[in-house]
Amino acid sequence: MSGKPYTERVRSVPSVVPWVLAGGVGLGLATTPRACSRPEEGARNAIVFIGDGVDDHQLTIARNYLLGANGAFSFEDFPYRAAARVLTVLESDPRAPEYVGDSASGGTALAAGIITSRGRIATEAGTGRSVPTMLELAAAAGKRTAIVTTSSITDATPASFVAHINRRFCQGPGDMGPTPTDPRCPEALKANGGLGSIAEQIAASDVDLLLGGGYRHFDQLDEAGVSVVRRAQDAGYRIVRDTAGLDAAADEPGKLMGLFGDDTLPVAWVGEDDGRARSVEFTADGAVIDPEPFRCVDNPAFGNRPTLEAMTAVALERLEAAPDGFVLMVESASIDKQAHQGRPCGQIGETRALDQAVRVAASFQERHPDTLILVASDHGHSAQIIPWPSLFASRPEPQYPPGKVARVRTLEGGVMTVSYGTNANYQEEHTGTQVPVFARGPGAAAVHGLIRQSDLFDIVRRALALN
Amino acid sequence: MSGKPYTERVRSVPSVVPWVLAGGVGLGLATTPRACSRPEEGARNAIVFIGDGVDDHQLTIARNYLLGANGAFSFEDFPYRAAARVLTVLESDPRAPEYVGDSASGGTALAAGIITSRGRIATEAGTGRSVPTMLELAAAAGKRTAIVTTSSITDATPASFVAHINRRFCQGPGDMGPTPTDPRCPEALKANGGLGSIAEQIAASDVDLLLGGGYRHFDQLDEAGVSVVRRAQDAGYRIVRDTAGLDAAADEPGKLMGLFGDDTLPVAWVGEDDGRARSVEFTADGAVIDPEPFRCVDNPAFGNRPTLEAMTAVALERLEAAPDGFVLMVESASIDKQAHQGRPCGQIGETRALDQAVRVAASFQERHPDTLILVASDHGHSAQIIPWPSLFASRPEPQYPPGKVARVRTLEGGVMTVSYGTNANYQEEHTGTQVPVFARGPGAAAVHGLIRQSDLFDIVRRALALN
Repeated sequence: MSGKPYTERVRSVPSVVPWVLAGGVGLGLATTPRACSRPEEGARNAIVFIGDGVDDHQLTIARNYLLGANGAFSFEDFPYRAAARVLTVLESDPRAPEYVGDSASGGTALAAGIITSRGRIATEAGTGRSVPTMLELAAAAGKRTAIVTTSSITDATPASFVAHINRRFCQGPGDMGPTPTDPRCPEALKANGGLGSIAEQIAASDVDLLLGGGYRHFDQLDEAGVSVVRRAQDAGYRIVRDTAGLDAAADEPGKLMGLFGDDTLPVAWVGEDDGRARSVEFTADGAVIDPEPFRCVDNPAFGNRPTLEAMTAVALERLEAAPDGFVLMVESASIDKQAHQGRPCGQIGETRALDQAVRVAASFQERHPDTLILVASDHGHSAQIIPWPSLFASRPEPQYPPGKVARVRTLEGGVMTVSYGTNANYQEEHTGTQVPVFARGPGAAAVHGLIRQSDLFDIVRRALALN
Repeated sequence: MSGKPYTERVRSVPSVVPWVLAGGVGLGLATTPRACSRPEEGARNAIVFIGDGVDDHQLTIARNYLLGANGAFSFEDFPYRAAARVLTVLESDPRAPEYVGDSASGGTALAAGIITSRGRIATEAGTGRSVPTMLELAAAAGKRTAIVTTSSITDATPASFVAHINRRFCQGPGDMGPTPTDPRCPEALKANGGLGSIAEQIAASDVDLLLGGGYRHFDQLDEAGVSVVRRAQDAGYRIVRDTAGLDAAADEPGKLMGLFGDDTLPVAWVGEDDGRARSVEFTADGAVIDPEPFRCVDNPAFGNRPTLEAMTAVALERLEAAPDGFVLMVESASIDKQAHQGRPCGQIGETRALDQAVRVAASFQERHPDTLILVASDHGHSAQIIPWPSLFASRPEPQYPPGKVARVRTLEGGVMTVSYGTNANYQEEHTGTQVPVFARGPGAAAVHGLIRQSDLFDIVRRALALN
């Protein structure tokens, strides 16, 4: 491999990636992943990808745009696939099902194997009891651990792997509340015997590597008046804040925290000319005006930051030498965040980033077959592909969706209409659909049929023989 | 891109299409179980279930209600599961992808293995050329064939297995048009050398058994002034119209047509007190009023008709003795039709009917293991589970979905909120998501990973060794 820093190597990939059909492989499906039983070897490493807000529909939207209706993402060719139930309970009655989850409850199911209420980070609904995460179990077993995300490293998904707190919003010591509508996290205050905010818990953690955003949650003073940045440094973290810093740290051993933005990192793609979903407009006669189709383009605000692919490559380069293996969690966070905002190009670009990062891991796994790779999701989201014009366009009255709509010109030259119809006044909602999971490597055969998100925790634990 | 029409391109590429990054790292899939092949035995019979409008989200809605969030339908325990791309093209440009299908294009993909435009029944987009269906191939091979549906047997899904016409709406000779907005089917008129309406084509078909609705399309006069009922009888069909008639015909050999309603059969379940999705209402102060949750109850209009389960049992009883096996298509049609109308209880009850019918087939398959069972779908639909109250309920302005919403009290005692947000003025739209497929029996192992709907035609054909 080249001696160039990973960030440079992967960043030299062209911005609009040419995807091509590699011909030749026939219907290789005459065999079963299940009926051909063979002893399951154990895994040494696990890489858990989370596409935040990914469901069948969001995947189809991104695939149609990037690869064409007949395409497939790298992970869609993985040998194992399951559907995962997204199970959540009410905080007020932990025996009662809730039918829509969030990144906290979904992240906790994946990271810690329990069904909890929305907003909770690796703690039980009702009791608030902390539950160990797969990263904590891995560290206790002598494995290295790492987190890579495009969100703040204090955001719900990464937090679920490293912290324990009742409210996901308590990201830094300045976020502990209370607010007029939310008591936030009084019991987590150190003064009250708690573990402190998520950032403080990360600073005190034994996670070897964290790469993402969220500097502002660390640039806050804790209850003793010391900044969390300082706490992290005192605990042995080298903190870098840009690509140059990341490259400079490449050959340095020890704990590393890369914070490449104050909060969520900017997304890779935006709609051309601010293309996003908007309410339908009408002519003076009341006829529906066809929204102008747009393409997706690079987001100029992305800047010189490392991509998810580059961060994943850096993480794997550092983890490769781990004497007893590792667990790495990689999240493409803004598929969800852009769906909340009705921005299909943001969703699509972040799904592309997920796929590119998975390819890095799949390549690593070819060299290290004792690596289990999961590609999972925490909850469903709002965007739906709808027909345009309506199936009922021949009717006399105008036919249009009541929410917001975007028409996107796909790379294969079609026009795909994406509707967001879950919230009339603010951001789109999560949805309660089951979500897909993809797997390869030792232990992956358990990813099969209809499972629960929390089963994935057990699958990783079993594959790595963690206690 | 190739200059070949899209339909040809997609038919000529291998069934498993590996897309790789040009010049990048190919995925070797080193751990794929496809390497451990085992010879596939052939199947003698095939039973193809179609849940009309079923996608991951519609399944989750029905599962949550019927079985609880942690439940599973019988077919979700089948050993093989895949996601199927719903591929459709524009009639005006058959090389161009359309991203939302209908029951005609989806039914044609499943029944005849081609990608066509919406509205077409087993005919090619653009050219109108007829393409043989799996029932026609099976009959030519000496197998018995049958269709069971809760829709009119002339509706798009069943029609795709037995008829060939350019417009799905030409169900009977009186439906051939033209209308002010639609020329309908002039080339299908017998006077113009065509095959006639769908009902006329069914009456002239060699399908051994058809059970469903749609009597009114047969109670019409053809171009020669003869009713299609009479044509069917002359062609050897015994026609029954109620459960007593069906029972009386049970031991009679020969062709049988059961028409248990004038059109689509009534659905099994409705919402209590006319419970269905409605626009959100507000207090005088502008606050959102929580919609009253309701349960699902039996539909009194269902009457004494045979259920989908009963019709499936009758079909399998008649087909069991087929000397050279059979192909049976069973459709639960009104999952789609009820979703169009924003009626979650209708959807749920018809998904339950699908599951019950699949159980009959699974039981049959235990006695006849040489039977391939597929449970497929033609296209996605509109209903989404959303949080209630909104994730953003703490904001000052009211938070509510812009479309219609229903709150359903599930059998496990939860409350599930279902939103329909795809059409502001009339019926809900289909959506463009990929759809799930489930399979068991010989040949089922090919239902794996990400496939195309049209691959299922090839899977049945190969399993049954049809030419």
